[in-house]
Amino acid sequence: MLKPITQLEFARAGKITPEMRSVADRERLDPEKVREEVAAGRMVIPANKVHLAGRLEPMGIGIAARCKVNANIGNSAVTSDLAGELEKLHTAVHFGADTVMDLSTGRNIDRIRAAIIAASPVPIGTVPIYQMLEELGGEIEEMRPQHFLDMVERQARQGVDYMTVHCGVKFEHLHLTTNRVTGIVSRGGSLIAKWMMVHRKQNPLYEHFDDLCDIMREHDVTWSLGDGMRPGSIADASDAAQFAELDVLGELTRRGQQRGTQVMVEGPGHIPIDQIQMNVEKEIEICNGAPFYVLGPLVTDFAPGYDHITSCIGAAMAGWYGAAMLCYVTPKEHLGLPEREDVKQGMIAYKIAAHAADIARKRPGVQDRDDALSRARFAFDWNEQFRLALDPETARAYHDETLPQDTFKSAQFCSMCGPKYCSMKITEEIRAMATEKPLGLIAELPLVAKS
Amino acid sequence: MLKPITQLEFARAGKITPEMRSVADRERLDPEKVREEVAAGRMVIPANKVHLAGRLEPMGIGIAARCKVNANIGNSAVTSDLAGELEKLHTAVHFGADTVMDLSTGRNIDRIRAAIIAASPVPIGTVPIYQMLEELGGEIEEMRPQHFLDMVERQARQGVDYMTVHCGVKFEHLHLTTNRVTGIVSRGGSLIAKWMMVHRKQNPLYEHFDDLCDIMREHDVTWSLGDGMRPGSIADASDAAQFAELDVLGELTRRGQQRGTQVMVEGPGHIPIDQIQMNVEKEIEICNGAPFYVLGPLVTDFAPGYDHITSCIGAAMAGWYGAAMLCYVTPKEHLGLPEREDVKQGMIAYKIAAHAADIARKRPGVQDRDDALSRARFAFDWNEQFRLALDPETARAYHDETLPQDTFKSAQFCSMCGPKYCSMKITEEIRAMATEKPLGLIAELPLVAKS
Repeated sequence: MLKPITQLEFARAGKITPEMRSVADRERLDPEKVREEVAAGRMVIPANKVHLAGRLEPMGIGIAARCKVNANIGNSAVTSDLAGELEKLHTAVHFGADTVMDLSTGRNIDRIRAAIIAASPVPIGTVPIYQMLEELGGEIEEMRPQHFLDMVERQARQGVDYMTVHCGVKFEHLHLTTNRVTGIVSRGGSLIAKWMMVHRKQNPLYEHFDDLCDIMREHDVTWSLGDGMRPGSIADASDAAQFAELDVLGELTRRGQQRGTQVMVEGPGHIPIDQIQMNVEKEIEICNGAPFYVLGPLVTDFAPGYDHITSCIGAAMAGWYGAAMLCYVTPKEHLGLPEREDVKQGMIAYKIAAHAADIARKRPGVQDRDDALSRARFAFDWNEQFRLALDPETARAYHDETLPQDTFKSAQFCSMCGPKYCSMKITEEIRAMATEKPLGLIAELPLVAKS
Repeated sequence: MLKPITQLEFARAGKITPEMRSVADRERLDPEKVREEVAAGRMVIPANKVHLAGRLEPMGIGIAARCKVNANIGNSAVTSDLAGELEKLHTAVHFGADTVMDLSTGRNIDRIRAAIIAASPVPIGTVPIYQMLEELGGEIEEMRPQHFLDMVERQARQGVDYMTVHCGVKFEHLHLTTNRVTGIVSRGGSLIAKWMMVHRKQNPLYEHFDDLCDIMREHDVTWSLGDGMRPGSIADASDAAQFAELDVLGELTRRGQQRGTQVMVEGPGHIPIDQIQMNVEKEIEICNGAPFYVLGPLVTDFAPGYDHITSCIGAAMAGWYGAAMLCYVTPKEHLGLPEREDVKQGMIAYKIAAHAADIARKRPGVQDRDDALSRARFAFDWNEQFRLALDPETARAYHDETLPQDTFKSAQFCSMCGPKYCSMKITEEIRAMATEKPLGLIAELPLVAKS
């Protein structure tokens, strides 16, 4: 057996690494439990050794841990710069992003990524085919396998913690997308598909999967197996193309784990509410419990401009059913590149989704904050409510729109109901009366309805 | 048998009313199916004869129909006026409210309500105890049953289509709320509870249920049986108090239907994701399929300022499981009285929830708009995407932030990915190549992976 390099290999060798211990602390789990989950491939700890030597605070993604949220940032050819991307990183982390993907496809990719990795306490993910394509001048058909291997190695050396690679898109499955409403909507997936169509050859990333594993293993970069044929509309959800690829991802999950690399699996996208449970359970079964990292899913396509909402419904449900990480969607999805405010709105919606999933899965301690906020609400402690709120500034601003004065921070009402109609205030009065004449006795009185 | 007055009585007598026919048209249902659903108590058509003679366009609420959304408007003692309330009404209807509740508790209630009913094409609901309390000078303990009966009659004569009455809060169940985190959070429920505590007597609205039925029947006002002991936090969800009241509501549903009145049943409130299905199914069973009208539910309490989002997750799921109408929650919930922009944001979130539920329940034709929008998206027809969007102005504005020029309305990309990375554009190229050498043949080539 090789000397262990990756968290997976250490876990299999029975060793609890400092990173596993750190994850156990953050998740309120036993360190041995974390080791077991990592060894079984049900949890990944994306921690490139370069980033780990920098600011990275190790975190775990898996069904035994709290549901995580990823924020996508990055420029495009049309807009954004380094300062703007760092601002998006800080905004995402401020609002609770557990990981951040830099999807830059515009200028200065290396410089932007280096700055992001240096500044980030959370794992950074990338999609290496984007930068490779930039260096090929945008001509995907020029790609040779070595181009891709080199780019993965370069990014691994920079400290990228996990990478989306579209190894699962196979030539013999492309025809399954022919009658789709929205075709192939993964950028990486469509690029690989185009390469295969031009060359009439199998996906080189699939063909070189083992070579890629060797690079990933050396730096302990975690696989995020991309779903290049995910549905781009609910019309295309759960179709043959999607599930043909999922079977390939199942095969690659096992192969990647056998070669010592940590693996998570990406999922859709656009899925109606009634198909979400089936999708999550299918991935868990086919990929042997590897952490499922879903994009939304959007549960309707009719609300561009509000896709952080259409998708956080699906994301909350997916998290409840067992997805390990939710990739946020911002209000700008399908319309333009997200800016700082969009990052914030996407993060808020997805922290809500992930937290609601954690509550439903009864993960240890997660409901404490809700209950504390509810107690503060009942006690009319407005400042404590704001303090405990996911976004204290917004909660306070909304309250203060109508009742800004300090005196109303202890008022037994707000402008919603006004002083006479506050049910919580009335409940207090009722409880005072019940203390005088206990309700327990009253309940036993022979009170019978007339009818 | 009495001469039929209400939609329920006509339906039972085998008669399809013009209102049932109108509902059938709007829902793409057979008129006989609508009649059957109304006769069985599984659908209500809230249509006060006074409002019907005015601008009301009849609509149906029930599991066989599309999932509906109610918007609450109304002033409080702290803020708002007539013009502001009419603006909220128009905003709610513009964004697709199926019904509107006027919850005014401030000044000029009669005048505001008359103006709202006169202006509204959708059914108007109220909570009569609010206005009664105003007239008692805020002293609930002064209430005699006749006060309440008179107010219900007055509002029925004005044309109110449905009324929330908290008949189900019983004296012997009050003690079940004693250890709750947030006590009683229904305004009407807490007022009735206070009255019972002061007088140590049973709920007079329960005692006079049959008398109330007679008034409701005469004007065909639909019952919205209030859930006065609904949970006000996820900590209190699905507790003994909530379900003790639900049993009473089941009894009252049957009694109300026997007396010829249409009945729907209100539901929570605050429910974790994993308890929503059980809650909906329990109501359907206990209340014999009467339409379930839920408030959210919020699936977490930690995000005041974003409760339109925390609750639309629960609402979408409730709608999928079988709730017939969703009462919206605005971003201002728990913080202040909603203004016009809050009404808009609440409506958008809830139209998304209701529509996603309709798609999941496969109601006839509901996915057509999603599919048309997806086709427009794939065809890069930006103007058509905006036209089909739930909120065209916002979708267009987001797109135009980075690419405002007219020429980009037919561009094969947006600023999110830029021209080189648009997967849909690449899919078009792939399809063009596939037309030259059909993919069907390619799929049959003996392409086998190396491994």
